[in-house]
Amino acid sequence: MIDGVLARDRAAVARALSAIERDPAGPLAAALHRHGGRAHIVGVTGVPGAGKSTLVAALIGAWRGAGRTVGVLAVDPSSPLSGGAILGDRVRMDAGPPDDGVFIRSMANRGAAGGLALAASGAVRVLDAAGYDVVVVETVGAGQSEVEIADEAHTTVVVVPPGLGDGVQALKAGILEVADVFALNKADLPGADRAAAQIEAMLKLGHTLRDPAWQPPVVRTVATDGDGVGDLVAAIDGHAAHLRSGGGAGWRARERARAYAELRRLVVARFTADVFGEGGARPAAIEALVDALVAREIDVGEAAEGVLKARGKD
Amino acid sequence: MIDGVLARDRAAVARALSAIERDPAGPLAAALHRHGGRAHIVGVTGVPGAGKSTLVAALIGAWRGAGRTVGVLAVDPSSPLSGGAILGDRVRMDAGPPDDGVFIRSMANRGAAGGLALAASGAVRVLDAAGYDVVVVETVGAGQSEVEIADEAHTTVVVVPPGLGDGVQALKAGILEVADVFALNKADLPGADRAAAQIEAMLKLGHTLRDPAWQPPVVRTVATDGDGVGDLVAAIDGHAAHLRSGGGAGWRARERARAYAELRRLVVARFTADVFGEGGARPAAIEALVDALVAREIDVGEAAEGVLKARGKD
Repeated sequence: MIDGVLARDRAAVARALSAIERDPAGPLAAALHRHGGRAHIVGVTGVPGAGKSTLVAALIGAWRGAGRTVGVLAVDPSSPLSGGAILGDRVRMDAGPPDDGVFIRSMANRGAAGGLALAASGAVRVLDAAGYDVVVVETVGAGQSEVEIADEAHTTVVVVPPGLGDGVQALKAGILEVADVFALNKADLPGADRAAAQIEAMLKLGHTLRDPAWQPPVVRTVATDGDGVGDLVAAIDGHAAHLRSGGGAGWRARERARAYAELRRLVVARFTADVFGEGGARPAAIEALVDALVAREIDVGEAAEGVLKARGKD
Repeated sequence: MIDGVLARDRAAVARALSAIERDPAGPLAAALHRHGGRAHIVGVTGVPGAGKSTLVAALIGAWRGAGRTVGVLAVDPSSPLSGGAILGDRVRMDAGPPDDGVFIRSMANRGAAGGLALAASGAVRVLDAAGYDVVVVETVGAGQSEVEIADEAHTTVVVVPPGLGDGVQALKAGILEVADVFALNKADLPGADRAAAQIEAMLKLGHTLRDPAWQPPVVRTVATDGDGVGDLVAAIDGHAAHLRSGGGAGWRARERARAYAELRRLVVARFTADVFGEGGARPAAIEALVDALVAREIDVGEAAEGVLKARGKD
């Protein structure tokens, strides 16, 4: 399967994605890790209704037109009902016959946030090792998901619709802090000028930027028509060039941030699985502490100390 | 300060909230924990633009009219720019002179998700100990935030605006799973009938419910006019009555879930602070593992094992 992934064999890539979703840090991940590090990993995120999936489909078309291969991981932090299959279905419908230069995988959020992020890291590792030039990680939602996708990507594109109410909603979604590039989508609708002005005014306040040396551009797009998609590709490439400039310190910093975030999540996942019996029955000692908390016999600080001390004695 | 909180002295409550936000599991939390357990904790959540804050203001009016005291924690999982002060300002404006039966506190999301949730648990503990009959925890955003607020509350109200696009967006936001009551707000706008039908259709699928014995009601409200707010109060009370029925097994299960979630978060926070030096410098051993990961000399599973073994030897 590893050779198949490295040769970008579709069936092998699909099987590897399924295997790594079940065991994101197992032997397959270890083997593929050595073969990665070439892809430009692009996060695409934003509030529901911003048109992310349509924009990703348009980006795929632009990248393919420029001869670049694209792997897409559509992460849907939501109900199993939607199953995250929407993007894949539409792109496949639009694209006609299968294109070996594009691979789209949907991943539904069925577990805890950390579990999903670990599975996403594993999936990115597969697509990276398979040699896709660009690996897109699309998430829906707002809040914590954006922070996690920003950990995963070299470049994070935040898709903003016009007419975000009073503009405060954009702030509320917590999206400014993670944006390397803004795509103001549906830019043909009323409110686009006002939304662009709001984003730019907020960016001028400056302290929301995670990289003071990079001013996130605001690119207007109409994903359904393809308008502005070339500009968006250029902005994404511009951010990659920024990261690689000056000896690549920016790129290396993002690689370290990605590695640290994944390591931290895996350590926490293994620790909590062990301590709280996650995936199986909760240990009796934990249940007894919960009962004592509810009965207000102990407080949460004492309970936590008890858990950590008991573990230290193992 | 503890006596002041128990006497519901506003200045003491305010100081206690500030203190517990800085140290959510310290001596103050321990002291107040013994005095809590009476409040009905109601989470209010939903996508940006649903009108949550206006609805909370209307609920406050209804509860106060019925002689019930209300503490509100407005948690804003977003930029420090907005500061979460909007609700407080508006309610104060509308309400005229201060009402000793209402206390509103805003809390901005400045740290990690777990840190915010711990601070929110602490703040709820203060408001509960102060004897407010209802404690509201309002969050904005979608996704992980809803899951965390559902841990915090006995009853979670999901506020849905009409015109959620194609209805799939509601699913994407992952909100169905945590709802005990739906408030279809702005019910005078076009699309309300369709949105209500969509929610009810999705509820009929059934497997998204976390409590199979409770069918979440869908209540239509127009928060700006107060329409339906009485019905919403009745639905929230109905859920509390459901939890307390049959010997209170449902209430006890929620209390245990709340205690477990807080305990787990605190254990993880203390563990990660210790292992990853959070709040200070990252340990050299961790930095070396990150470097080795980026250099692809080791894989993430090996790195995690190294971290956990090193800790076991302490």
